[in-house]
Amino acid sequence: MSTRRYAFGRADEATHPDSLRATLAEFASTFIFVFAGEGSGLALVKIYQDSAFSAGELLAVALAHAFALFAAVSSSMHVSGGHVNPAVTFGALIGGRISVIRAVYYWVAQLLGSIVAALLLRLVTNNMRPAGFHVGVGLGEGHGLLLEIIMTFGLMYTVYATAIDPKRGNIAAIAPLAIGLIVGANILVGGPFDGACMNPALAFGPSLVGWRWHSHWIFWVGPFIGAALASLIYEYVVIPTEPPHAHQPLAAEDY
Amino acid sequence: MSTRRYAFGRADEATHPDSLRATLAEFASTFIFVFAGEGSGLALVKIYQDSAFSAGELLAVALAHAFALFAAVSSSMHVSGGHVNPAVTFGALIGGRISVIRAVYYWVAQLLGSIVAALLLRLVTNNMRPAGFHVGVGLGEGHGLLLEIIMTFGLMYTVYATAIDPKRGNIAAIAPLAIGLIVGANILVGGPFDGACMNPALAFGPSLVGWRWHSHWIFWVGPFIGAALASLIYEYVVIPTEPPHAHQPLAAEDY
Amino acid sequence: MSTRRYAFGRADEATHPDSLRATLAEFASTFIFVFAGEGSGLALVKIYQDSAFSAGELLAVALAHAFALFAAVSSSMHVSGGHVNPAVTFGALIGGRISVIRAVYYWVAQLLGSIVAALLLRLVTNNMRPAGFHVGVGLGEGHGLLLEIIMTFGLMYTVYATAIDPKRGNIAAIAPLAIGLIVGANILVGGPFDGACMNPALAFGPSLVGWRWHSHWIFWVGPFIGAALASLIYEYVVIPTEPPHAHQPLAAEDY
Amino acid sequence: MSTRRYAFGRADEATHPDSLRATLAEFASTFIFVFAGEGSGLALVKIYQDSAFSAGELLAVALAHAFALFAAVSSSMHVSGGHVNPAVTFGALIGGRISVIRAVYYWVAQLLGSIVAALLLRLVTNNMRPAGFHVGVGLGEGHGLLLEIIMTFGLMYTVYATAIDPKRGNIAAIAPLAIGLIVGANILVGGPFDGACMNPALAFGPSLVGWRWHSHWIFWVGPFIGAALASLIYEYVVIPTEPPHAHQPLAAEDY
Repeated sequence: MSTRRYAFGRADEATHPDSLRATLAEFASTFIFVFAGEGSGLALVKIYQDSAFSAGELLAVALAHAFALFAAVSSSMHVSGGHVNPAVTFGALIGGRISVIRAVYYWVAQLLGSIVAALLLRLVTNNMRPAGFHVGVGLGEGHGLLLEIIMTFGLMYTVYATAIDPKRGNIAAIAPLAIGLIVGANILVGGPFDGACMNPALAFGPSLVGWRWHSHWIFWVGPFIGAALASLIYEYVVIPTEPPHAHQPLAAEDY
Repeated sequence: MSTRRYAFGRADEATHPDSLRATLAEFASTFIFVFAGEGSGLALVKIYQDSAFSAGELLAVALAHAFALFAAVSSSMHVSGGHVNPAVTFGALIGGRISVIRAVYYWVAQLLGSIVAALLLRLVTNNMRPAGFHVGVGLGEGHGLLLEIIMTFGLMYTVYATAIDPKRGNIAAIAPLAIGLIVGANILVGGPFDGACMNPALAFGPSLVGWRWHSHWIFWVGPFIGAALASLIYEYVVIPTEPPHAHQPLAAEDY
Repeated sequence: MSTRRYAFGRADEATHPDSLRATLAEFASTFIFVFAGEGSGLALVKIYQDSAFSAGELLAVALAHAFALFAAVSSSMHVSGGHVNPAVTFGALIGGRISVIRAVYYWVAQLLGSIVAALLLRLVTNNMRPAGFHVGVGLGEGHGLLLEIIMTFGLMYTVYATAIDPKRGNIAAIAPLAIGLIVGANILVGGPFDGACMNPALAFGPSLVGWRWHSHWIFWVGPFIGAALASLIYEYVVIPTEPPHAHQPLAAEDY
Repeated sequence: MSTRRYAFGRADEATHPDSLRATLAEFASTFIFVFAGEGSGLALVKIYQDSAFSAGELLAVALAHAFALFAAVSSSMHVSGGHVNPAVTFGALIGGRISVIRAVYYWVAQLLGSIVAALLLRLVTNNMRPAGFHVGVGLGEGHGLLLEIIMTFGLMYTVYATAIDPKRGNIAAIAPLAIGLIVGANILVGGPFDGACMNPALAFGPSLVGWRWHSHWIFWVGPFIGAALASLIYEYVVIPTEPPHAHQPLAAEDY
């Protein structure tokens, strides 16, 4: 314990890469947290102004997505890596964690899964038309695009930190839960503004079956940009590059 | 790390069984996620049309089932496998994971547990009549049956992937939570349409004590079909069959 | 894998103690699940009849208790066993898992913790009077007592299975969550009927500071009886007694 | 098992430091639990009196913060220790777990993360003004300050017990979840009274971007005092100091 405690007091700490990476991690995580926390308050003001739906309805949609994504990622993590999202697959591709061939396979499978889900929903609900996503009243497509970029950045950063980073340790066990719940938190923020998609497959199947394509491109371009940004930052800045002289990794367990 | 990263680039990847299994896993998981996510929106439209109950009430019921099932599966996972559901027991039987004798024991115990719970509820509530399940206004029994098949498919697929698959690794620790929360997510979808049962024991005890049998068969046949489908697909397609030449399993950890 | 699969087919399975214990576990877990699931529906009917409060308010109270208990049990599990409840301490005493001296220490600490919390709440809220627990309109004390017995049985059964049973394996990691969330689920059932206490400390501090003692005894006697019943059943029936000839424990991992 | 069971019966148990530490842990955890549980009921009374907002809105805000903080802490735990909060960094500094230099780095990063989040929120919402925190109607700044101290005490105690204590064992895997959900529980208590901040970074960015500084100091002083108190108590009283003669640690696994 005493070694751990004084490891922080090293003379070179102010310039050591571990300090800088840890500082960057604090920046990114606080950004993700404050965006969702403060944003959820603004989302309720938006709901109140629009009278479109209630906080209870927003909660039901957010928890349904969060819980189902958690189960879906848990179920596929050890088989496919648990992407369940073309943007996450794109982020893994950008980070060099998956081959192009496998990415194409995943994309086709994800879109097919979404289409079949939307078709079956139309069938069991006696022909209700799926809604898809669109930008809320009073906002432009630019707002929606930027919102998708930011929210998917938070999602992909969480995926990278908890499910890909080789130094993540026992956090790996709860990675699917963190992935599911950050999506739930972001829906509580973005739901009243643009539906909070973060996942082109989630947009595509319902759009196809409900034949609604207005602003559909936002829910492809935004998530792909956000996921790519998070992957590049995490893969090339946060993940420690092993220096030539192997020293005990400090950051992995030095809380 | 570098070996991991380039393992994806193998020449035979496009046809390797691991790629196909991973792709199937992405299909199934995206299907489960989109069904619940998009479906929860349709469920709220249904609530709004019927004025039967509110989003807050739907949430309360969904979380009560999800949290209690999580605790119940956690409590029995290491003793009995944590079925808590005759359809899950049937799925385990179809997949060859449990003997017929043990399945019969479990079924009797599950139905008795449900009956005692329903009787005690009637007693402590000063004789309120349990409600049981029924198909919602505007839907036929066929819709309800198909909905039960689909939702129980998602549940059993999650059970197989997180609690049975020998290659599931550290996902096992959160299997009961994934099982509880996929049921919660599916109730947020199916609740307004057919009550979202997915579990014959959950239907049987309240039906018996409240003596309501209308459409009761749906909540046996649907879950049994859905669980059997998921078990067959997971057991015989997703779980990798060991090839004669033992090679390092790629899919288990190659995220 | 093949050995695992055929272990179920043993000739003596129908009478083997492991089968019977597993069957009992399925009974108890299905009871706990159906009680909460079906009960949450009846709770909403009760709310609707009484117009006392809304489903959203019930949810807020249930989640506050569930999340805080989860954190509190997580924080004390490795130091004190994570009781946070005089009834759980009583159950551990009945099951022979804690000495009388330590139980007395814990009881005093738990009651003091509750009193200080209630006093500080009165202070920070500018003198709002704590509410305590009472039996709802239309119900007798007998109903409340039985309800407390049943709900605390479910809580203590979960504590025993996930946090005490030496064979619980990797379920131990999520024990505090299962304990927190079963309390949340039970509040969604019992809240409209008797407040859903399950914990004498939770009742005592607010009762003392708010000076409300009506039916207070129920929230001591009920939880103590329920916890004792669960401890006796789990300790002496579900936990396998090692036979003289050491054989590979079947139940621990034979899903 | 029998050794475990009788270890509690030692003659010196009444005065052994382990018993006293365990008793203190029960006190602190029961305090945290009862404060949130009973407090959530008072919070609903406050909402009802003020008609300021609904239970559903309180829930949405609480879950957005809880889920996002869980993901953010999960993502940074293995890199920086997962503070995401200047008060937690201060507590770690007080407890001697982090150097001054690193603390300053973290503080700057946390404040920058919050500012960028608030700026982007203003941008994507088409210029909605962030709300920040303030003390509710009918309460003085003293009430708000004390409330922040108490709630942050509960948060920092949870951080210390689940993420720092070297004896925490497998609880470490769910530390980020316990940290996220205690914040959610405390928001369900403190939300209607002072917004329930517990985190100067969460207050600072929105205050700066929305330019609202009324009572802002409370959300720095309160969390810093609360975190320091929890750190001192946990670091110097609860964490067992190793006696010179190395004996098997009793408290770590003796449930």
